[in-house]
Amino acid sequence: MPLVRISLQAGKPESYRTAISQQVYEAMRETLNIPDGDRFQVITEHSAGTLVADPNFMGMKRSAGFILIRIFLSRGRNIATKQDLYRNIADRLAKTPGIRPDDVMTVLTEVGLEDWSFGRGEAQYVLNPPAWAKQGDKLPA
Amino acid sequence: MPLVRISLQAGKPESYRTAISQQVYEAMRETLNIPDGDRFQVITEHSAGTLVADPNFMGMKRSAGFILIRIFLSRGRNIATKQDLYRNIADRLAKTPGIRPDDVMTVLTEVGLEDWSFGRGEAQYVLNPPAWAKQGDKLPA
Amino acid sequence: MPLVRISLQAGKPESYRTAISQQVYEAMRETLNIPDGDRFQVITEHSAGTLVADPNFMGMKRSAGFILIRIFLSRGRNIATKQDLYRNIADRLAKTPGIRPDDVMTVLTEVGLEDWSFGRGEAQYVLNPPAWAKQGDKLPA
Repeated sequence: MPLVRISLQAGKPESYRTAISQQVYEAMRETLNIPDGDRFQVITEHSAGTLVADPNFMGMKRSAGFILIRIFLSRGRNIATKQDLYRNIADRLAKTPGIRPDDVMTVLTEVGLEDWSFGRGEAQYVLNPPAWAKQGDKLPA
Repeated sequence: MPLVRISLQAGKPESYRTAISQQVYEAMRETLNIPDGDRFQVITEHSAGTLVADPNFMGMKRSAGFILIRIFLSRGRNIATKQDLYRNIADRLAKTPGIRPDDVMTVLTEVGLEDWSFGRGEAQYVLNPPAWAKQGDKLPA
Repeated sequence: MPLVRISLQAGKPESYRTAISQQVYEAMRETLNIPDGDRFQVITEHSAGTLVADPNFMGMKRSAGFILIRIFLSRGRNIATKQDLYRNIADRLAKTPGIRPDDVMTVLTEVGLEDWSFGRGEAQYVLNPPAWAKQGDKLPA
């Protein structure tokens, strides 16, 4: 159920975007235990000057290769899981397509299980809460 | 007060985008009771490969006509109201401009009443909470 | 740590976008006490009809110069601080680059301290909570 927005500098080949898309999806599969096929992403390219990232904030050395990954996901993951997710994304992107870890920024935004409709006008997680939510979480009243 | 982002495949005529814009607004008028004129939307077009939606997740049959509707709205609507909203959007878009319900994904993100400034640097809902919020909700301290 | 998205009508010169970027950053420096260099922004241009804002909702007189500023920031600022932020942004943009206050809409979305990774796959605010959060806020368990 995570919805992902990926913002990167314009001008990269399609294979570069495809690799990022795939690696972010696999990182979420591995650390968030999302089911097979739960892949919804919007990937946008930005010209220089419109994707602004301070080159050094928080001790990083950012380059023109900076990418911003925003993930909207249901509430309920603990801090350790989120840390695993950040690390997994950075590690994977370092290997494929080869993005410097200093250039990978990830920001999460949590929403409720009742905030998703995957199609047909239905709120699928209200009708069938995911397994992880049945255990630890309560569906909001 | 909802802010709406609509993402769709590039290449559709302007009338197609206008119809979506209008139908989503009317669905929110009907199910969320938003006031007349409360219409703020950002509509973006995406080339193939940059608006990624699994073709079958959650039992749907998605096509290239997939659209993603994201709505930022104030906290306080219950689950039944959200379900009405999803159904209303899907039903309306099926009629005009004719989008398959399997292709309509809607995701909500809730914010606070104090998180909106509609202009002039003022937080209008802090000064004048909407009627529905006076009844059921409490304005955060 | 705030992440800012700025949406404006297409066709403005680069200096116009740069001025907005700078003024919004300085408003956040002044009212949110964000540290030097905490500047992350995505600026997008939209053709007529795809950045939809009602011309009169909430008593404003909006023009084609309408801009939408969305700020994702950590939970913990009170209402007065948010009001200061809205006012400061509107005042600054009225001076430079000269945007009518009726045309400035700002919307906030709050996230947790554990929802940020600024690079290297680390959750920097988990490891080192910012000073303001140590005082008033509790880091989520």
